Amino acid sequence: MPETDASGVMPIALDAMGGDNAPDEIVAGAVRAVREHGISVVLVGAPRPLSEALSRYDATTEIPIVRAEEALAMDEGALASLRRPRSSIAIACHLVRRGDACAVVSAGSTAGIVATGKLRLRGQPGVLRPAIAVALPTRPTPTVLLDAGANAEVKPETLVQFAHLGAAYAETALGVESPRIGLLTIGSEPEKGNKLVKRAHELLSAAPGLDFAGNIEGHDLLTRTVDVIVTDGFTGNVALKTMEGSVRYAFSQLRETINESRTARVGGLLQKRRIRELHRRLDPEVHGGAVLLGLNGTVVIAHGASQAKGVSAACVLAATLAQEGVVNRIGERLAAAPRSHRLW
Amino acid sequence: MPETDASGVMPIALDAMGGDNAPDEIVAGAVRAVREHGISVVLVGAPRPLSEALSRYDATTEIPIVRAEEALAMDEGALASLRRPRSSIAIACHLVRRGDACAVVSAGSTAGIVATGKLRLRGQPGVLRPAIAVALPTRPTPTVLLDAGANAEVKPETLVQFAHLGAAYAETALGVESPRIGLLTIGSEPEKGNKLVKRAHELLSAAPGLDFAGNIEGHDLLTRTVDVIVTDGFTGNVALKTMEGSVRYAFSQLRETINESRTARVGGLLQKRRIRELHRRLDPEVHGGAVLLGLNGTVVIAHGASQAKGVSAACVLAATLAQEGVVNRIGERLAAAPRSHRLW
Repeated sequence: MPETDASGVMPIALDAMGGDNAPDEIVAGAVRAVREHGISVVLVGAPRPLSEALSRYDATTEIPIVRAEEALAMDEGALASLRRPRSSIAIACHLVRRGDACAVVSAGSTAGIVATGKLRLRGQPGVLRPAIAVALPTRPTPTVLLDAGANAEVKPETLVQFAHLGAAYAETALGVESPRIGLLTIGSEPEKGNKLVKRAHELLSAAPGLDFAGNIEGHDLLTRTVDVIVTDGFTGNVALKTMEGSVRYAFSQLRETINESRTARVGGLLQKRRIRELHRRLDPEVHGGAVLLGLNGTVVIAHGASQAKGVSAACVLAATLAQEGVVNRIGERLAAAPRSHRLW
Repeated sequence: MPETDASGVMPIALDAMGGDNAPDEIVAGAVRAVREHGISVVLVGAPRPLSEALSRYDATTEIPIVRAEEALAMDEGALASLRRPRSSIAIACHLVRRGDACAVVSAGSTAGIVATGKLRLRGQPGVLRPAIAVALPTRPTPTVLLDAGANAEVKPETLVQFAHLGAAYAETALGVESPRIGLLTIGSEPEKGNKLVKRAHELLSAAPGLDFAGNIEGHDLLTRTVDVIVTDGFTGNVALKTMEGSVRYAFSQLRETINESRTARVGGLLQKRRIRELHRRLDPEVHGGAVLLGLNGTVVIAHGASQAKGVSAACVLAATLAQEGVVNRIGERLAAAPRSHRLW
């Protein structure tokens, strides 16, 4: 596993062609990651525009470029990953597989990244369903939610595996010791929910190596009740996007409210900066970096609309996960889990 | 159907014993509904505390009381409705069934209300799955979301029926002509989602009498993209509670942010009232009233924590739905739907 040989010197393979603002903001993010966070980065993509962009930052010698002839468009789905073996995201995965990079970062289409990651990096031993984990902006530390959309349909046993993946994330990236796991459902009593979560509740309650705290509901997503929230990819994706949309709506309504009256407007000006900072903290386009867990290598999916700051944050997250050995941690957890939870 | 004979004179049967603040805030809400909105209300519950509470408002002659010996506790679930045929919510349903009231309003436990409503009022012809509809606080008009939690597991055909129930709600309570229907899922393309929504997408696309606008995602919940959002009760409940929790979180963080610096605090004071009003508009405990659709009678479920204002708002909603004939409208819609969508 490349990440363990790294000792912090292996670079992040950054897909320079993925995302709404590629390649300019991706390059700007790479420069930021290198200069402000001391992270080693390789850009993967079309050499000419990349070296032009790098030269604008005087960074052509700082950040190497690995050529990739093609790129997945943002509207291309999973199939494109088969049709384009030389896409920037495929090459980035290849660098990790070959041991030339410790992790992949891409702001490309989620479906494309998931499909390419599965195809090029393959699942870790015992993992049949890689999952997307996101860090919800709770305080003092984020809360890990998974699956945020990689698997629309899962079995109860898969949710137990997600608990291990999420726990490994919380342990390595967030420094949480023995993370508490919550199961997202529609009532706090064990018998509440659909068939999937009722059975998953039984399995999680009996699973060794997991600190299962029971059911949680939608309004607990941001209350830091647990460290890791497990759910299927359909529910998780709806919940995540609902959260993002609701926060955005609350702030847009707030802005309207502040602009409606003069007194309120004066008040608004006095605290504009603070509110902007808060909005940014809660805005997934800024804090964002989802992680595809369960592959033979770390893959961070930055928000498609990411700008330099988001790209750089995603590189920091990828470097942390690789240095802390999230892939190994998942391997250890699954090896310790009873056989019935490993094979299905 | 009682609501059609009403001509606005049949009262609302208000369960005076349900809710965290029963009976005092329920009685206060009844007084408000009668005096401020000209709605006729009957209180159902234990006569002595109710008449005491009414006398505090000098309202003993204005608002009649119908005796109910028992009440469902907030933590009692569906089974209690069988054990307590003389509970306040059961008697309230009975009044509607007998034609002595046009609608039921209760702030009691949702599970108890749903079970009692199904048992005492029975489903409308052709409706096998009553659903809970909520009005999301969008502008200029609310957006109807259903099912918000009555059915954790449904068939694709049931989602088509939910579309009719929701459309009838939008037509009668919100005055929307030919409501646009959206299907909640995890991608805008028809092939996105789990098996349930993929099949439901096909059925909805082909269903006559429905203006199906296609898939919507979690971040569209509050953007007023469609008039009615259909989903299963598990996803709908998670989405609704996530929305409520996220709005609450955004405001709590806002309060913290405003209190952190002196300049911001001064600004905050200048717009405090406006922000409080906004918060209240988005707060389900205030605007709240979910509707149980598909029964032989209108049942409005007020938020368990409702105070007088919320109870009164729920009575206004119930009176509007009854006067506009939502039960008949659902009957007409289902009668016009092809047989395959009516019987399963």
